[in-house]
Parts: sequence; C-alpha cells; structure tokens
Amino acid sequence: MKTQIKLSLALAIAIALNSLALQAQDQAAAPAKPKTMQEILDATQPGDWRPLNPNNTIYLELATGRVVIELAPKFAPEHSKNIVALARERYWDGLSINRSQDNFVVQWGDANGDDEKLKRSFRLAKQTLPAEFVRKSDGLAFTRLPDADGWAPHVGFVEGMPAAQSPVNNQAWLTHCYGMVGAGRGMEPDSSNGSELYVVIGQSPRQLDRNITVVGRVVQGMELLSILPRGTGPLGFYEKAEQRVPIKSIRLMADVPDEDRTSIEILRTDSESFTQLVEARRNRRDDWYKVPAGHIDVCNVPIPTRPIKK
Amino acid sequence: MKTQIKLSLALAIAIALNSLALQAQDQAAAPAKPKTMQEILDATQPGDWRPLNPNNTIYLELATGRVVIELAPKFAPEHSKNIVALARERYWDGLSINRSQDNFVVQWGDANGDDEKLKRSFRLAKQTLPAEFVRKSDGLAFTRLPDADGWAPHVGFVEGMPAAQSPVNNQAWLTHCYGMVGAGRGMEPDSSNGSELYVVIGQSPRQLDRNITVVGRVVQGMELLSILPRGTGPLGFYEKAEQRVPIKSIRLMADVPDEDRTSIEILRTDSESFTQLVEARRNRRDDWYKVPAGHIDVCNVPIPTRPIKK
Repeated sequence: MKTQIKLSLALAIAIALNSLALQAQDQAAAPAKPKTMQEILDATQPGDWRPLNPNNTIYLELATGRVVIELAPKFAPEHSKNIVALARERYWDGLSINRSQDNFVVQWGDANGDDEKLKRSFRLAKQTLPAEFVRKSDGLAFTRLPDADGWAPHVGFVEGMPAAQSPVNNQAWLTHCYGMVGAGRGMEPDSSNGSELYVVIGQSPRQLDRNITVVGRVVQGMELLSILPRGTGPLGFYEKAEQRVPIKSIRLMADVPDEDRTSIEILRTDSESFTQLVEARRNRRDDWYKVPAGHIDVCNVPIPTRPIKK
Repeated sequence: MKTQIKLSLALAIAIALNSLALQAQDQAAAPAKPKTMQEILDATQPGDWRPLNPNNTIYLELATGRVVIELAPKFAPEHSKNIVALARERYWDGLSINRSQDNFVVQWGDANGDDEKLKRSFRLAKQTLPAEFVRKSDGLAFTRLPDADGWAPHVGFVEGMPAAQSPVNNQAWLTHCYGMVGAGRGMEPDSSNGSELYVVIGQSPRQLDRNITVVGRVVQGMELLSILPRGTGPLGFYEKAEQRVPIKSIRLMADVPDEDRTSIEILRTDSESFTQLVEARRNRRDDWYKVPAGHIDVCNVPIPTRPIKK
C-alpha cells in the first residue's frame, strides 16, 4: 500500500498494481532495500502460518455475518473452558448484544442477567470462576517488542495475542488492544463467569489491564461489531429492547461441520517474518511516509490472517 | 461511574445514583480522598470551561445528525482558512463520505476528486497549500503530561487538542488520537488542500504524526462517523456509489443562526481541573479498579464537553 490517506478507489487500485510492479523491480534490483509489509507477507513460508485450533475458537453468528474469536487458555484457562461449555449448551443462542459505547467496548450476553427471575440459567457451565487477570510469566513463550510502553515493563506477543509482562513480579497478562475480548465482571474480581463478553472497539483502554479477565481476540469480523449503533443509555447500553442486536448463535469451531468453518490461518507472532513485519510497521518504507516513526505500540501491530489454500 | 464493564442498564442507573450518594458522603467525611472524574467535573468553576469559537468550528451535517469539528489554526493556519473558505462556498454540500476503514479512518470529500472532468471545482478556496505537518514549539502554550510516550519526546495538550513536541528541534504537532481530523494528501507533502478530510475511528495511528496535516478534532458527534459500514474496496473505500454516505452540508458555525447552533462548552486543557481529571484517569479511584495503571496515554485522556446553561 503506497498511501494511507486520500485516493479514489480507482487510483488506489492503480497504485496497488503499480506497487506490485515496483516491488518486483526492488526484489530484482535492490534486495538490500528494507521490505514493505506486503513484500514480507509475500515472502513468508508455510511454516510461518498456523491454523486456528477448532477446540479453542468460537464463532459468534449475527444476521450480518460471523465473528471469529480465538480464546486464550494460556491466560484464562477457567474462563476459556467455561466459554466452550456455554457455547456447547447453546447458552447465547437468542441472547443479544446489549451495549455499544463509542471508543470503548461492544458487549453481549443476557440482557436480563441481573434479574434472578428472568435470567437464563446455565446447564453445564460453572456459575463462578476465579479471577484470571494475570498469570505467571514462567513457561510463557513471550515474543518481546523492543519498544517502550508506558503501561507495562515489557510488551509483546504470546501465540498471536498482544501481551505484557513484568519481570519484577513474574506476572504476564493480555493487553486491551482493539479486538481483544474480555469477560465482564461486577465489583468483585471473581464475579465474571464468561457469559458476559465485551470486545474493544476504540483506542486501547489499557487501564483495564490486570483489572479484568481477558479471554481472547477477534481474528475476523471485527467490522461487524465496531459499526453497531452506539447505545444512548449509561455506559452505552441500549435503552430499548428492540435496539439490542440478536445473537443467532455462538458455536465452538470444533462443533461446526468442516464445510461451514472459516478457513483462515494466522501469521505466527514468534516467526522471523512477524518480526520483520513489526519493523516494517515501526519504520514505514512506503514512499508516502516522510518521517518514519521509529516506534510502534503493541496495539498498533497488525496480526495478519489469510485464507487457507485448499 | 463505579464500573466499566458488565451491568444491565437498570443496575447501571442504580449504581450511578448510589455513586452520587457515596460522593456526597466522601466530600463531607473524607475530603482528602482523591476525587473521581465526576467529582472533579462537579467542582469545576465557570472559568474552567470555554465556548467554541464560531469562526473556528464547522458543522458536518448528515442525515443522522451533526458532527461538530473544532479547527486548529495554531497548527494548520492555511488549511483551517481554506476549510472555512470551502464551507462558505458550500463546496461539500451534496458530496459524500467515501471511505470507512475499520480501526483506521472515515474519510469524506469529492468521490470524483481524481477525475479532472468530473471533479467539483473550487470558487474561492485555494487549490494548493503548504504542508503543515509540524510547527515551531515557540509561542505555544503546551500543557505537558508527565507520562512517557513512545512516539514523541513530550506529549500533552494545546487548547483542547492532543499534541506532541520535541525540544530537540523545537517542533510541535497534533497527535493522531481518536476523533482527530486530518487533510488527506497524495504522495507529495503539499498535495492536500483541506477539501478531502479524514477522522481517526480506531487505535491511534500515531505513525501518521508529522506525515500529514492535522486540521482539528471532532468535539461532538463521533458516534455518527464511527459506526458507518466499512468499505470493502482497497483502503476501505466504498465500492458502489450508493454505499457512499451523503453530506447534507458543511457550515461554519458563525454562518449558522444562533438558535441552530450546538451550544456546548469544553473543559480548558490548561486548567487545574483538567490536570486533576487526567490524574483521576491515570490512577482510577473507582472502587471497580483493583490495580491503578499509574500511567495514561495522551490518546486515552477524555476532553469533557457539556451543554452551556442558558
């Protein structure tokens, strides 16, 4: 992509094509030139990519399409298990998205969750879980970014999720970047059970880090959630029942027939290709850029996906 | 606000009321306790607030409502002047929002801007302007945040806009935070004239800082832009003309009759109240928070507005 801003659709396509031509030249004539993100992706090997684990991925089905969410059992084992159990008992089917707060979160679950009489009961899932705000850094394959971060001593990635760690107290946690999914809770740290979920739709609310259990990340379909009309009630809740967005179903990928699965793979964040990609984003080589930033925020790093070639 | 996540609407209201009661107690019983954001706002003096300058504010009118944009003549004097000229010649009336790229920008202007035959011509506005990516720090009232920033030596606020500066080269610039508005350009730094505008709708794309002219900030109505369906073409452009979102008009506030103006005022970012508010956000005192962040990003600081009491 030679430019970020402006351009008609026609010009964008023209430049995209031209870009490919230029890249071909670059690779032939000047291999030493730093690669662009596209060149790095084009040069990846099959081993740089990983499929989604069907037992660790859920599909949120809306009238507008499917949102694919990868769970993070390494950080939230109890919540991940309970979310799988809730999906298997079809807990969310027919429930709704009840909250859309601009530049903050979109949230779904049981709109009557606080009404003991009306709320939907669990069949197999647990009612209560321990808080899983942080975990021990020990035993975690943490791909650290060299870049400074104001919110945490170290930031980087763990198996495709933005994360942070503190060597001082041997803690690690997932960071509230765009598209990260968390388990809503009340005032008590252990008051979440995974039935009420939210996704970050704006500037990363990193102040939530270590204050709530982060359960995973949207790997496809964010644009179905981020465009939902904002709620006009307190905290962005929809004020009228008819404003809520119905959830057709939430299913575990493993419970969906092969032919109905979303067939994508994700660039491994522990691959050399990903490290190159981060540098290409840290210092943009696109001709459009005049001043490379020389820095990148953990929440500004894209985690590429692509269709699996069949 | 006692909690950020979870809560039914009913519970949210209950807690909000309860919160007011608790705050009243706090103020009587324990004045030493750090104030919450709401307590700080409640304690502000009239002088802590400023109205919008009618000659420095534009209204983007959509079928869904009004977006209020404050211009930044201190950082982009030429672009600000040209945007006012374009509004006065009604340049944008009947044009459209042509691009919505998830977690990046929404952009509007002339969909035929690259077609010499079809594009709308200017009457009074200038066709070309100098690039206004940065300015001298000298003479700028910069309210600096003590918090570290990876993208710039210093970050803070200038007259209600998030900004950065470098003492090394005496430069200052506006930062690409959520709601900031910039002037689209092509490959050449001086190829923007203010007719093509974009607004940040996701994680702050700070890599754009110092690479493009930032012209102002949306102070009300962001939720009308952030929810626009994402475009499926390259860079999030709408692929079909009928997908574009019509612009009813863009007007200078000064050209709108008093009774039709949006009557809001903005908390002064150089006020002691704002400094207290930033600290209340840096270390949340809400009972919901268990671990105060001890840090805030310049793009995570809310800039409060309120209706002007008549």
